Amino acid sequence: MRAGPSQEEIRRQNLGALLRYVHVRGPTSRAALTAHLGLNRSTIGALTADLTAAGLVSEGLPQDQSGRAGRPSLVVRPEAEVYVFALVIEVDRLVAARIGLGGAVLDRREARRPRGVRDPADVVAPLADFVREMQRAASPSARYVGSGAAVSAMVRAEDGLVRLGPQFGWIDEPLGEALAKVLSDEVQGGDRAVPVRNNADLSALAEHVRGVAVDTDNIVYVTGDAGIGGGIIAGGRLVSGHGGYGGEVGHMVVNPNGKPCNCGSRGCWETEIGEYALLHAAGRDADSGTGRAAVETLVDAAGRGDAQAQAAIRQVGDWLGFGVANLVNIFNPEMVIFGGNLREVYIAAAAQVRSRLNRNGLPACREHVRLRTPALGDDAALLGAAELAFGPLLADPLEAAADNP
Amino acid sequence: MRAGPSQEEIRRQNLGALLRYVHVRGPTSRAALTAHLGLNRSTIGALTADLTAAGLVSEGLPQDQSGRAGRPSLVVRPEAEVYVFALVIEVDRLVAARIGLGGAVLDRREARRPRGVRDPADVVAPLADFVREMQRAASPSARYVGSGAAVSAMVRAEDGLVRLGPQFGWIDEPLGEALAKVLSDEVQGGDRAVPVRNNADLSALAEHVRGVAVDTDNIVYVTGDAGIGGGIIAGGRLVSGHGGYGGEVGHMVVNPNGKPCNCGSRGCWETEIGEYALLHAAGRDADSGTGRAAVETLVDAAGRGDAQAQAAIRQVGDWLGFGVANLVNIFNPEMVIFGGNLREVYIAAAAQVRSRLNRNGLPACREHVRLRTPALGDDAALLGAAELAFGPLLADPLEAAADNP
Repeated sequence: MRAGPSQEEIRRQNLGALLRYVHVRGPTSRAALTAHLGLNRSTIGALTADLTAAGLVSEGLPQDQSGRAGRPSLVVRPEAEVYVFALVIEVDRLVAARIGLGGAVLDRREARRPRGVRDPADVVAPLADFVREMQRAASPSARYVGSGAAVSAMVRAEDGLVRLGPQFGWIDEPLGEALAKVLSDEVQGGDRAVPVRNNADLSALAEHVRGVAVDTDNIVYVTGDAGIGGGIIAGGRLVSGHGGYGGEVGHMVVNPNGKPCNCGSRGCWETEIGEYALLHAAGRDADSGTGRAAVETLVDAAGRGDAQAQAAIRQVGDWLGFGVANLVNIFNPEMVIFGGNLREVYIAAAAQVRSRLNRNGLPACREHVRLRTPALGDDAALLGAAELAFGPLLADPLEAAADNP
Repeated sequence: MRAGPSQEEIRRQNLGALLRYVHVRGPTSRAALTAHLGLNRSTIGALTADLTAAGLVSEGLPQDQSGRAGRPSLVVRPEAEVYVFALVIEVDRLVAARIGLGGAVLDRREARRPRGVRDPADVVAPLADFVREMQRAASPSARYVGSGAAVSAMVRAEDGLVRLGPQFGWIDEPLGEALAKVLSDEVQGGDRAVPVRNNADLSALAEHVRGVAVDTDNIVYVTGDAGIGGGIIAGGRLVSGHGGYGGEVGHMVVNPNGKPCNCGSRGCWETEIGEYALLHAAGRDADSGTGRAAVETLVDAAGRGDAQAQAAIRQVGDWLGFGVANLVNIFNPEMVIFGGNLREVYIAAAAQVRSRLNRNGLPACREHVRLRTPALGDDAALLGAAELAFGPLLADPLEAAADNP
């Protein structure tokens, strides 16, 4: 029952729509913006002038003018000097990047993270170093407008409190607060909250905005490392749930008589398709290594004819398809995307996955579903964290730009 | 990347917001509308004048003026002469109602429906009779503005094709088309499509708009008769999925070694918590009856100490909680609502449900969840079908009113 917007709100909405368009689609001619946004030429001109004055876009001749007759339409470009920091905290790695308006990764740092270390400082300190280095390397004219973080844990949207992060040994860890302090210390103008979300949620968002699922409004994204995460987009919007914990598909119980899960339940999907389940089924003990490399080694072994590895992949692939069928029945998505380790598992076991989906999925729910691997690879969460960080700027460009002179 | 609306779109949006407000909240003073819609007095006055001229609202003095000093603010009332037909097709009953703007049930017809009858005509013909009777009984000044239907089946949103209705023996049955013909034959101005949706989806919608879940944006509604249906609201919007089949939680597999389901899969939630599972677990064979009455008799027997009935309810209650825990982990809802037969089961087995939810649900996902029974009882789907029917009028009041003079 929201009333229509005021003139000022409409202007803000139009500025945001134009800026978001060039941020997502790249440099665009005024003529194309007029057509795509459904606004007239003079409005586009006025909006572009405002955004240019705020230093958020620039205008110029198209780079390729060959073969065009007449005066070319000016091209509006997102100003890549306007940047955010995107941070990713996963069980095996930490990533930080400086990402420009338009989505280009301008600078990037990554470190392996040893499993079994529980101290949040061991996560936060390296990220602080990365941010400091990248900030120093940035051009003096570059403008910081915010940060966003992805973590493979259950995180409260409101304040970035990690409610449960079994892979880090965290319960009720104030990660959002700690990251806000880092940004405040390292970056001028960084004295503000840093939004933090689940990494699978942000991966789904990134694949939707600029990956394999562009123009696809109903998506299930599942990803695996030591645990299993999920990000759901329904009707074009992320299913966040009441507190931000939506999409915890790894703790959907699929096998009531299954193994204990570290969430306290039993037979969760994670216990059947997680990395440990796969390595265990193949008879690999902890000494054979863990993480992506161990999964890739196993998949390679299966490809070379290792029967135990093949059986393990078939078994996990069957459970992967089993859970996907449940999610397809619940969400009727157009696409399911397999990220992280599940990408390797899916590629190696696509036949099992599809066969199980066909057996357990309702025909109407599954008939249009495409099974895909990520277009953004392991950078999906990073790019999603950048989208999160750019959110306030795209919602209200002039206000946010004024806050970050 | 939608641009801001034009002046004409804003006017339409404001007219819709005002009309929806009084439709949902009832008669409201101009002063309160000004406050709730965030528009100024003169805009509210102009919008009210337009809606009055279109015959959609009327203005008058408040009914209760006692104890008020000064000149009272005029009250805007939805015009209940403006009506829709709402139709419900369930395994054991057919319902049709004439429902006025504002949500009042002006007239209502209901018939029991025998199970095992497959001919769509046996559903459509009685509904046509109901519509004819109610239309004849309506005041000549009453204005029909549309219809909507709820069916306990998987239905394609686009055209009301029932893709799968096991309870009716239907596959790819063009129900929407058949109902459109009924309305076209019986009601002047009825020559148009009749939107059809799943009954659980519409029940969830109705409970959200005017039931137990008002102001609650993340809801899981589960309902049972012969089958199990689900309706999900995430972030205030129905999770419809790509084709309209979202929310088929009854075919989430919870027991991989369970019983065959009539969807072709095995161990679906429906096979563990559906009416047949409950009656079977209690040793009731088909001769003891089916449907709501049989479930109520069973619950009564358990209340009187029948050990077999008690054990059956405990068993089904445990599986009910099991599936609810999965859905709570996936959706992080604020409320789970138990409709149809599941209302009785939930009330009788609340301890099992809660205990299983506590065991399998992630604390962050379940900590704020309330378990509830419907406020609208068995009329939820009917009222949801009316909301569906009023949709075009509320989206664009003057245009829709002009189409229905």
